[in-house]
Amino acid sequence: MKLKEAVSVQDICNIIVAQHSGHGRELISGINEIHKVSPGDLTFVDFDKYYDKALQSAASVILINKKLTAPEGKVLIFTQNPFNDYNKIVKHFYKKQVSAKTMNGVVGASSIIYPGVYIGHGVKIGENCIVYPNVSIMDHTEIANGVIIQSNTVIGSDAFYYKRDNQKVFTRMESCGKVIIRNNVEIGAGCTIDRGVSGETIIGAGTKIDNLVHIGHGSTIGENCLIAAQTGIAGKVKIGNRIMIWGQVGISKDLEIGDDAIIYAQSGVIKSLDAGKTYFGSPVGEAREKMKQMAMLKYLPVWWETIVKKS
Amino acid sequence: MKLKEAVSVQDICNIIVAQHSGHGRELISGINEIHKVSPGDLTFVDFDKYYDKALQSAASVILINKKLTAPEGKVLIFTQNPFNDYNKIVKHFYKKQVSAKTMNGVVGASSIIYPGVYIGHGVKIGENCIVYPNVSIMDHTEIANGVIIQSNTVIGSDAFYYKRDNQKVFTRMESCGKVIIRNNVEIGAGCTIDRGVSGETIIGAGTKIDNLVHIGHGSTIGENCLIAAQTGIAGKVKIGNRIMIWGQVGISKDLEIGDDAIIYAQSGVIKSLDAGKTYFGSPVGEAREKMKQMAMLKYLPVWWETIVKKS
Amino acid sequence: MKLKEAVSVQDICNIIVAQHSGHGRELISGINEIHKVSPGDLTFVDFDKYYDKALQSAASVILINKKLTAPEGKVLIFTQNPFNDYNKIVKHFYKKQVSAKTMNGVVGASSIIYPGVYIGHGVKIGENCIVYPNVSIMDHTEIANGVIIQSNTVIGSDAFYYKRDNQKVFTRMESCGKVIIRNNVEIGAGCTIDRGVSGETIIGAGTKIDNLVHIGHGSTIGENCLIAAQTGIAGKVKIGNRIMIWGQVGISKDLEIGDDAIIYAQSGVIKSLDAGKTYFGSPVGEAREKMKQMAMLKYLPVWWETIVKKS
Repeated sequence: MKLKEAVSVQDICNIIVAQHSGHGRELISGINEIHKVSPGDLTFVDFDKYYDKALQSAASVILINKKLTAPEGKVLIFTQNPFNDYNKIVKHFYKKQVSAKTMNGVVGASSIIYPGVYIGHGVKIGENCIVYPNVSIMDHTEIANGVIIQSNTVIGSDAFYYKRDNQKVFTRMESCGKVIIRNNVEIGAGCTIDRGVSGETIIGAGTKIDNLVHIGHGSTIGENCLIAAQTGIAGKVKIGNRIMIWGQVGISKDLEIGDDAIIYAQSGVIKSLDAGKTYFGSPVGEAREKMKQMAMLKYLPVWWETIVKKS
Repeated sequence: MKLKEAVSVQDICNIIVAQHSGHGRELISGINEIHKVSPGDLTFVDFDKYYDKALQSAASVILINKKLTAPEGKVLIFTQNPFNDYNKIVKHFYKKQVSAKTMNGVVGASSIIYPGVYIGHGVKIGENCIVYPNVSIMDHTEIANGVIIQSNTVIGSDAFYYKRDNQKVFTRMESCGKVIIRNNVEIGAGCTIDRGVSGETIIGAGTKIDNLVHIGHGSTIGENCLIAAQTGIAGKVKIGNRIMIWGQVGISKDLEIGDDAIIYAQSGVIKSLDAGKTYFGSPVGEAREKMKQMAMLKYLPVWWETIVKKS
Repeated sequence: MKLKEAVSVQDICNIIVAQHSGHGRELISGINEIHKVSPGDLTFVDFDKYYDKALQSAASVILINKKLTAPEGKVLIFTQNPFNDYNKIVKHFYKKQVSAKTMNGVVGASSIIYPGVYIGHGVKIGENCIVYPNVSIMDHTEIANGVIIQSNTVIGSDAFYYKRDNQKVFTRMESCGKVIIRNNVEIGAGCTIDRGVSGETIIGAGTKIDNLVHIGHGSTIGENCLIAAQTGIAGKVKIGNRIMIWGQVGISKDLEIGDDAIIYAQSGVIKSLDAGKTYFGSPVGEAREKMKQMAMLKYLPVWWETIVKKS
């Protein structure tokens, strides 16, 4: 996330009680995970393997648990537990504003909001939208024009994203990202769309989503896609344009699905998929091949009797 | 849907600005998709392949994008875009009545409605029903006696039904159907049951549905069925009586499942199924055969080593 | 469940109009299903096969549909339909307290409850919890400290548990159990967690659950588990500690999953699983083996051409 106003390295060090390698007046304009940083950002690293990546990243300020020399133009902040301190900083600047009020955001005059809808702080809803009963739209969600969200759907739930320590205890990474829904998107009933951890979950213009679909944190869905019921898309998936996903499909995290791909029902996608092709199966393969293989299964018992037993 | 009062062909032509083949005083008593029409209905056709089917159907009035001769006793209405004009007519006669009120329907005196429930316009709920918190019951849903609906379930969400144009942009077909729930049906928490596009989604008497189940538009479930959690049933499926469907099953659209069939968990049903048989697998087959095939899978690596490599 | 105050056998017989084998002043302190009973409990049996088990169980009082001799120290209550009378007794002592009020339980002062949340009678919520909008927490749920429940989740829905009679008509077994959620559990959006039928559904400390997950009646989840989106766990499953379950997994009823097991996405678990192992597939097997088998599938069409056709 970008901060509303830049803060100094010294201000940050005062919050988390830590020392830094600079003069303290360097400014921080955003807070982001390592794979999302741009100049002005603060990030963190707590793992040998990623020290180099962090030091060479675009981030200007880095929370780190080792006393290394800061590269030219960067400031290091030294702390025992960069993850926890990063979480503390996010919480400091991204305050969840709890409210007893049901409607907190800005809603276009021509849009229709049914009873029982919760609209969080900083939410923006455009014109000609319909939000059906008992929908929950969490803080900072941005909804464009002509969007329809059916009953009991949740937009902007926190990411399912945890750090596991040596004792196998999980700590939540605080979500400070948001969900962006573009023009003419339609979302079914009972869906859940998570916000990004530090970035954005985006549903592209014209995309239509059926009931009980789950979309994970930071995923991007292209334009004019169709996603059928009970499909689950994990975090940080990139889905192109005009993609058709049938029911109960599962897509693992961090994958890319090319434009115009078609994925048949109940497929389990564990690798990135090419544009324009049709896929099926769990684990997924090209549909024609996969179906040929599945059709062969019925011969297995016959083979067993006639070939294997005799050999 | 049937109209409350019949309207004339000329009235319809005034709404959508179109010309017709009749004298204009012919009456229209219903609006329905081509596979649902009965005499008195208006329907539409916009596709070469279906002209004949439409002209020979029971419909009395047909929106069509070609200047054909009307068959005896029928009226044709000529329009560039029959789909859009059909949608316009549906919207004209099936007005969504948005309300800030939570309870708009008629509820039996002995029925219990928990807080947070939304009840839309024209909803009827019988006697001895329990509707748990945060359920959304959309317009025109009919619920008989002794029905239990658990928390956060949605009844009567709009159909996931779109027309895709040449530019691969989707347009929603306006839903004007409804959901009918018969006596002693019980529906779990977090379910979604879509209304029909122009017809009815029906849950038969005594049927019990677990949590997070999705039932698509216009599907019919028989009596005394059991449907376990996270099962998804697509649109226009016909399910018989006393059928048992275990968890996470998916059933594709337009299929028929015979009485007393049993479908094991995680099956993917892509063809109609016979009465009284037991099924398993994705894609589905008879359970005994399918399980024999699945059991054979463990021999594949051995075959590879001992037979294939040697041949 | 345990009763608030013990009642006499005669009191019970007055409620259901039945005769008993004792003197009537024997006390009943709890009501439980046969596999859950301890001394002082009333239970029922209506099935030849289970008469012995019931008579030899720890239960002190047994509803039974056969005139047998009571074992030493036990009382039999004779009734035509033990199941229905058991249900009647549960209903008598476990009254559902319906309320138009949204908040009925006891909530820790430092906990945050968003708008639209329903909190039932007898619910206890500890300190430092966050309950997001439109969550439904049903009667008698116990939530410890530091628990997060995201929007539109349902805790304590009634069990999906029915008795089917000779006419294949289902009767619900009344749920009088509850859900217990321990410290620092986090539950995603749109989940459903059923209460036990007569016992408890328990989510162990530190366990994290993603969106749209279903957990059945009376299941026990251990500590520090991770359960990814759209997973479904049936009734009375025992899940150990530190278990990782990926997305869209299904687990059948009554199974046990050992500590530290890992279950990959879309697996279908139909047998108990060992501690410390990694599993995959539907039906599930050890992941390494199962993946080897799946990898072999691509050779099937080749085998068909080169081996089978020639043999």
